[in-house]
Order: sequence, then structure tokens, then C-alpha cells
Amino acid sequence: MSFFRPNVDRIAGYMPGEQPQDSGWVKLNTNENPYPPSPSVVEAIREAAGSRLNLYPDPLATSFRRVVADLFELDPDWVIPANGSDENLTILLRSFVDPGELVVYPYPSYILYETLADLQGGSHERLPLNADWSWNHAAARSMVERAKLAIVPNPNSPSGNRWSDDDILSLIPPRGVLVLDEAYGDFCDVPHRAELLRRPEGQRIIITRTFSKSYSLAGIRLGFALGQPDLITGMRKVKDSYNCDRLSLVAGEAALLDQAWMQANAAKIRSTRGRLSAALQSLGFAVVPSQANFVWTTHPSRPHQSLYEELKRRKILVRFMKFPEVPAASDGVVSGLRITIGTDGEVDQLLAALREIV
Amino acid sequence: MSFFRPNVDRIAGYMPGEQPQDSGWVKLNTNENPYPPSPSVVEAIREAAGSRLNLYPDPLATSFRRVVADLFELDPDWVIPANGSDENLTILLRSFVDPGELVVYPYPSYILYETLADLQGGSHERLPLNADWSWNHAAARSMVERAKLAIVPNPNSPSGNRWSDDDILSLIPPRGVLVLDEAYGDFCDVPHRAELLRRPEGQRIIITRTFSKSYSLAGIRLGFALGQPDLITGMRKVKDSYNCDRLSLVAGEAALLDQAWMQANAAKIRSTRGRLSAALQSLGFAVVPSQANFVWTTHPSRPHQSLYEELKRRKILVRFMKFPEVPAASDGVVSGLRITIGTDGEVDQLLAALREIV
Repeated sequence: MSFFRPNVDRIAGYMPGEQPQDSGWVKLNTNENPYPPSPSVVEAIREAAGSRLNLYPDPLATSFRRVVADLFELDPDWVIPANGSDENLTILLRSFVDPGELVVYPYPSYILYETLADLQGGSHERLPLNADWSWNHAAARSMVERAKLAIVPNPNSPSGNRWSDDDILSLIPPRGVLVLDEAYGDFCDVPHRAELLRRPEGQRIIITRTFSKSYSLAGIRLGFALGQPDLITGMRKVKDSYNCDRLSLVAGEAALLDQAWMQANAAKIRSTRGRLSAALQSLGFAVVPSQANFVWTTHPSRPHQSLYEELKRRKILVRFMKFPEVPAASDGVVSGLRITIGTDGEVDQLLAALREIV
Repeated sequence: MSFFRPNVDRIAGYMPGEQPQDSGWVKLNTNENPYPPSPSVVEAIREAAGSRLNLYPDPLATSFRRVVADLFELDPDWVIPANGSDENLTILLRSFVDPGELVVYPYPSYILYETLADLQGGSHERLPLNADWSWNHAAARSMVERAKLAIVPNPNSPSGNRWSDDDILSLIPPRGVLVLDEAYGDFCDVPHRAELLRRPEGQRIIITRTFSKSYSLAGIRLGFALGQPDLITGMRKVKDSYNCDRLSLVAGEAALLDQAWMQANAAKIRSTRGRLSAALQSLGFAVVPSQANFVWTTHPSRPHQSLYEELKRRKILVRFMKFPEVPAASDGVVSGLRITIGTDGEVDQLLAALREIV
């Protein structure tokens, strides 16, 4: 006899990418930043470690929110911190979705959205994308009209493409909220700056951001959401009081205040992204033009799973992904490799291995 | 027009104790430990700050779980880590309680349980305690029989008393799970060692623990739950993949491995607790014999709110608490002061102030 909610028994749970705990791997599978965080982040953590860890953090994260607000030229009331973007997504589901209410998201995309909707007891529908990852607006419209929450990663994962502002604005549910998951927003050629929040339609948009990617801080679990104060105030009732700890809050502040460090790393990643994309094409791969810190690549003849396995044998981890039930795909399945942009040295190792394999 | 779930609109949200961000306060209001964490904790954080913060933490917290398991002489499969006990409670509600299902908890007790049940859309009932904080088993029985989840803090807050094992075991719902919130378990004269999990009835018990109190680490947000593997496996599907960060996991390991440090601080707190309790009684207060790192105290004639305010004017923070609708109370209300055990110096300042006031 199970005491769990039937929804919990039913789901498998989200399976994150492999996180080997031993060293020696070229790790290009979970979109981490290959460069270390700003030295001022390390310094801030070391200083905070020596003082007042016995006390609870500020439940309102006042100082952190002020730094975020300054960067985005918003009022601090527009900011809520979270224990990583994952927690922000959980807070959003628990804020807006009652059992049976509809959550929609593009497909193929970040499959965690579906797990979170299931956990919340919401229903969910997939907004089908065209084969070139552009929007099928005709198919999306009726789903969006019935949705309480639309969640759209921009740039998208696994594809890495960025959609236009007009595409995005057309996805606001008439009776709900649009969540833009901008985990990869700093890697765009023209980075996202929360411009959409300032549009009249911005009243119904919430943007989530993370320190895991551009700020090289996946290990500290910190993110934040931006939205108009009525939305943020309601979300604050749902979050745990002390959801962010003293160390991550000071680390996040220091990271935001060293924009030059983050921008320099993002620029290196953009440059390596261009080089990797071109090299993959010369090896016969197709590559979606990426605005993120990864590329989505497919090979016309070599099975993607075996490519992944051959690389893994060489201690190179990439992400093999397979999305069933894709209407726009010729055989109904989209599969491929999502490869995180590592250092130039790591990418050279990957390319050398691929030259042997294909 | 609100887009929030009606449950979210309806509730006020949990209001944590005051957390002044300026210094100069004698802070005896949120049951923090007045002593710093083990030096090995600080060292572990400083070392981890310099390495691999760009990578995600181990989603299974393998190494941390092994250390916990060793301490409690359990298998690591019996352990799940959380971003503080608050997150463990949230995970428990989301694991076991569907809309309309019943959550029960003693009253007066930790009022967060009620907020979490509301957020989850569960119903809730309060298990009434007798005026001396003992169980009213006759009143509790029918509620426990209908409950999916019973949550019992042991020692209790705000009273600080500890109940017998027999009392506790009688609270396992016939069709549900008993959660023992042992945030203060290390401060008992005979500390809790998860003994109840080893009883036949232990199959249906989950124990939550935190680093915020005995380990002096409220600032890092870390806790864990213990229970039999089927229960832990289901809860793992509900938690965010990377709910605990690299810094808190190494800090928690180091804290657990320095038992001598924690035990010495707990012993000091027990000793100060005895001294404070006696001094309060000599000033005319009633004090519940405490097994926690705080005392619950009432004064027969002085209004508790004004005592709290007079202390606050002197930059001494204690917690004024007022519980309405208490059947066992003569006027239906239980009010009093919950005073955290500080250092001997802090307690002397408190007592000097109270001597002026009463």
C-alpha cells in the first residue's frame, strides 16, 4: 500500500544529466560554464563563511534584490530570489496552477516543465514547433487560450535558437501568465535585458534567470525571477521563508557586480560556439544556429545514441536526447546531441574524438 | 483580476521571526545557536569556494548521505537532504497530501504546518493539547484516524517539552504517515537518535532534522529527513534535482564529523537553559521545563506583548506569541514569550532588563 499521492506514484521523476563525481571527464552535458566564477565571488564566500553562519539569512534578501534591481533598472519589488531556477519554476507552478488547470510549453524543450505540472496535478499540452524550431502559431493558439501558465525557454533548449519578441508576446495566455525561462539569456548575441517586462503586455510576464550558466555558479543554486510587484508578492507567499542561504546571496551579489568577468566569459563561449558549429558542419553534422552555451546537432546517418556512447567511452560526456511524438518530425521522433560549449581545449578534444568516430 | 490559485490569494503567508540586518541586537527570537559552527565547517566552505562552483552539485548528495547514515547507523537509502527543514516539510506535503486530504498537528505548535497544508490545498485540524502541554489523546484519536499526515515537533515549539515514545507512537495515522520534526532533538537531556525508526511502527515514520539549531548553521539552509527507503525514494521524485548546493553539503558533512563541537555547545545551552529557567521563576514567571534551545515563559500579571516591546526598546529580541482558539486555555488564548537560549552574557543582559521591567 502506498501513502503517496497518486500523481507522485505515477511519475518517474525528472532525471537530470549525468553528474560524475570523479574527475577526468570532459563534461559537456549539462550546460555548465567551463570557466570559474569571478575571484570576487570566491572572496565574498570566504569572508561570509567566517561570520554569522549561525544566524538565519535575510528572508527578503534585501541587499541581493537591490543589486539585481539596479542591474535591470527595476525596483527591488520586481525581484524574488530562488534556490536555483528549478525552485523558481516550482514556486510558479504552486502559485498559479490548481489541479486540472492547463500548463503549456513548446516541444521539444525542457522536459522538467512537464514533471512539475504533473506533480502539481495540472494538465499539460505541448505547443508543437515546426521542424526548423520556429513556432507553429496556428497549432499553439487554441492551447494558449486555455492555459493558466505558458512556460517558454528563450533561447530554447535543446535547440539553442532564439525567438522574436513578437513570437513571444503572442504566447501570453488570455487568462494566465507567461513565464520566460531565460537561463541562457546572457549568451545571446544581443543579450536579454528584460525588455519585455517594460511593454504593456509585460504585466503578465515573469522572467526567470539563473547564476548556473553565465555566472559559472551552478554549484551554489541561485536564481531569481522578475515580474511586476503584484505577481512577485503572491509568489513570496509560496516560497519557503529562508529559501536562499547567506553564502549564495553574497556570492550572487559579487557575481552581479563583476559584469566584466561574466561578459568576458560569455564572449569566449560565443566565439568557441562559432568554431564548434563550423567544425561539426565540416564533419557532416547539421547544427542549429545557437544563441545559448550549447549547440544542438544531428548527423544524417550515424545513430546519435551510439555517438554519445562512443564519446562516453573516451570520457567525454555530451547529452543524447530523444523526443518522441513530435508532429513536425518525419518519423515522429527528434533525436540528437546537445553539446555544451566548453573551453577551446575541451572542444578540441571532442572534435578529435568525433573525427575518429564518424 | 488575480491569476493566483485561490488558496494562495486566501492565505497571508507564513511570517518568520524578525531578522534585523543591523548589528547590536541581543537576538533571542528565532532559536538560533549563539555559538559559531565548528572551525572545520568554515575551513570546508573556504576550500570548496575555490573549486568547481561552476559545476552542479551531486543531485544524490552521495557523500553527505553516507556521513548522515553512519551517524545514525542506517543505510544511506534512508536519508534525503533538503534546503533546510522547511523544504523537507514542503516536500512531505507535496508527497503525501492531495487536495482535501487531512493534515493534523498539535496546537499550540509550529504554525508553518498550517500554512503548508493550506498551500497544498489540504484540509487541516489541530490536535488539542492539555493545559500542561501533554496530549489529549481522547480528542486527538478521531482526527489522527482520518489523517493522511500527522506532523509533530518533538520537542514541541513554543513549549519546549518532550513527549514520551508511547505518546508519539499513538499518533501514527492508520492510513498515513507520521512526521517527527526533530529540529531541537539534540538539545534533549537524552538526545533523540532516531530510535523510533527501528521499531516495527517505524515503517510509517519520517524524521526531519536540521543544521540550523544544534550545528549553528541556520545561515546555510540544510536539513535532512530519515525514513525507510520506499518513503525516501518517493520523496526524491518530488524534490528539485539540485536542491542542496556544494557549499552547504560540505559544510554539513564537516559539522556532522565534529560531534564534539556540537555536543559541547548543546551542553552549554542546556546549562544556560537551567540557569535562565530558575532566574525567570525567581522573577515571578512560570517556565515550562524545556528540552530545547528555548524556554516558554508566562507571567501571571504582566501583559506579554508589552514585555516583548519593552525588551525590544532595549534592543533585546524575544518572540511574543499568541495562539487563539485553544480549548484547554481558560480564556481560549495561550500567550507568552518564547526565549531562545543565548550565551550566558546575552541571558544576563535579558535578565537585567527584565528586572527593570517587571
